[in-house]
Amino acid sequence: MFPRVAIDAMGGDHGPETVIKGVALAVKKNPKLVPILVGDEALISPVVTKYEELKGVRIVHTADAVPADEKPSVALRSGKNSSMRLAIDLVKNGEADATVSGGNTGALMAMALIVLRPIDGIDRPALAAYLPTIDGQCCMLDLGANIECSADNLVQFALMGDAFCRVTSDVKSPSIGLLNVGEEEQKGNAAIRDASAVLMNPENGLNYAGFIEGNDITAGVVDVVVSDGFSGNIAIKTAEGTATFIINMMRRSYKSGLMAKIGYLMARPALKILRGKLDPQRYNGAVLLGLNGIVVKSHGSANHAGIDNAITIAVSMINNDFMADLKTSVRRSLKAVDKAENGTNPGK
Amino acid sequence: MFPRVAIDAMGGDHGPETVIKGVALAVKKNPKLVPILVGDEALISPVVTKYEELKGVRIVHTADAVPADEKPSVALRSGKNSSMRLAIDLVKNGEADATVSGGNTGALMAMALIVLRPIDGIDRPALAAYLPTIDGQCCMLDLGANIECSADNLVQFALMGDAFCRVTSDVKSPSIGLLNVGEEEQKGNAAIRDASAVLMNPENGLNYAGFIEGNDITAGVVDVVVSDGFSGNIAIKTAEGTATFIINMMRRSYKSGLMAKIGYLMARPALKILRGKLDPQRYNGAVLLGLNGIVVKSHGSANHAGIDNAITIAVSMINNDFMADLKTSVRRSLKAVDKAENGTNPGK
Repeated sequence: MFPRVAIDAMGGDHGPETVIKGVALAVKKNPKLVPILVGDEALISPVVTKYEELKGVRIVHTADAVPADEKPSVALRSGKNSSMRLAIDLVKNGEADATVSGGNTGALMAMALIVLRPIDGIDRPALAAYLPTIDGQCCMLDLGANIECSADNLVQFALMGDAFCRVTSDVKSPSIGLLNVGEEEQKGNAAIRDASAVLMNPENGLNYAGFIEGNDITAGVVDVVVSDGFSGNIAIKTAEGTATFIINMMRRSYKSGLMAKIGYLMARPALKILRGKLDPQRYNGAVLLGLNGIVVKSHGSANHAGIDNAITIAVSMINNDFMADLKTSVRRSLKAVDKAENGTNPGK
Repeated sequence: MFPRVAIDAMGGDHGPETVIKGVALAVKKNPKLVPILVGDEALISPVVTKYEELKGVRIVHTADAVPADEKPSVALRSGKNSSMRLAIDLVKNGEADATVSGGNTGALMAMALIVLRPIDGIDRPALAAYLPTIDGQCCMLDLGANIECSADNLVQFALMGDAFCRVTSDVKSPSIGLLNVGEEEQKGNAAIRDASAVLMNPENGLNYAGFIEGNDITAGVVDVVVSDGFSGNIAIKTAEGTATFIINMMRRSYKSGLMAKIGYLMARPALKILRGKLDPQRYNGAVLLGLNGIVVKSHGSANHAGIDNAITIAVSMINNDFMADLKTSVRRSLKAVDKAENGTNPGK
């Protein structure tokens, strides 16, 4: 299998050099990967020649790119010939199996939604990513694509998170938690309680663990954290902010005296392990799930290792046939809901 | 001024010994404090005799206490003679200026709401607390009292947070941020956008800084973070979880080799500073704002230093006349809204 990934070479804060360096690294690690670089040929070609791995790579030329701060609505109207849009179009037309972009998140979500459309049984796509936990990682969604979510949306997020976690990790039956303000059944709003009742139905085939709280995320209590996009976005940004806060405080503490400084130097290798665990490049690659096609959002500030990681996630989803897997899950869940509603489900 | 604080001596995981030790510490630091201990006299009296500071302290006896895991609705019905309820009643009857309890949070919020009722112009009380930031602290509310919030609720939370921050810290004109998923005007749901429009009206007398994101909380971007109770609860618990995660990872890193261990020992004094900054006892004392009376929730696991800190917050609110301050703010804000709605506000 030769996974074909359309890459928005113009997306990201560091320009095409960094993106292409990341693509070269990904090809080096996986020679079967077929990248398609979308963007300004005059800028891309000179960089491509630097990498033996990229000899003969297909370049789809366009001089247009979506500005980083452009409103999604404007990008939709005026960005029809942008590198981001053409990369998504390649997926739509069947010329690529996935697209990776480090450009404007809002524009990418809007364009992907309009061009690729949600699959049957999914009302709205969700943004998912892996976060580090004490003993590994967990996948969390939605991270901000949907501000207000119904019970149906939350159930669909659970199905998408389950499929994503299964095809991109070693976890065969991921445990799923619904993010709430307490573990008791009566906690939260109506949407979250209704979603929980549906997820408890064993016919969904999910390993549903019930409600979890904010402190359970990094504790690794579940493999998949399901949330509405508002709270999910606030949670992930609060976690990032807290990590930055503590690391800055540690740096200050270390500067507080000579002994502390020497101690810091001696402890440095150990601290490197911690930093590796928290390395945003390692966790780069948020995925927009639920559309007819695979869309990976690389962080704007990603370096070449981060780009490689984002591409690796796309390849893993292609090679493990994420699309077919998700469609099967959604069909099974719709049947389970039908059965429960028609009273033919003896478990209900 | 002799601040009178009714203390639920039975509330908290460690029993009356710890609570009373905390009360004794608070009286030692502030001899004007008049504590009233509410709970089982047979348990309280022997402990009280250990502390010279507590000689002659008033004890309000009851053998009833609210169990830690009791549902708020049950506690409301069957806890009418509990230590928690009698402590709140003392505030209602004017025998105390504030109450402090480390018991069941849900029961405390429900009882305080029923007994003390919200002040005019406040629809629902909110739970507020201080969190550490890189250069100090910020006050955040609501932390979980209100799952779904209207624009009016959020505006009222801002007024309460502003008054609380002014009377309990050195900040004279606290900057206020609304927690959202982005800083742009069009972000978030209708309630949050409408609240933002009202808070921008300068006639409210607030130092409103606009929308902030999760990572801005611990960065100390504003003095007061306003949020609905669902996202606020998830944010604070995610921050707690992330801090625990990083500290556990650090401990593991330090154990990874001899040099790391020695480095750790040398850096320990510096790390103590960090731990002090994150010490939950120092930040103990969440306050239920907006009721006709001052209610401080001490954390169940608080030690005597934590209890002292919760009492100190109550005393600071009493001495700086938080109740009168908040009532003035609310009246001014209601006037500003009236003016804006009647079109007599030229700024609108």
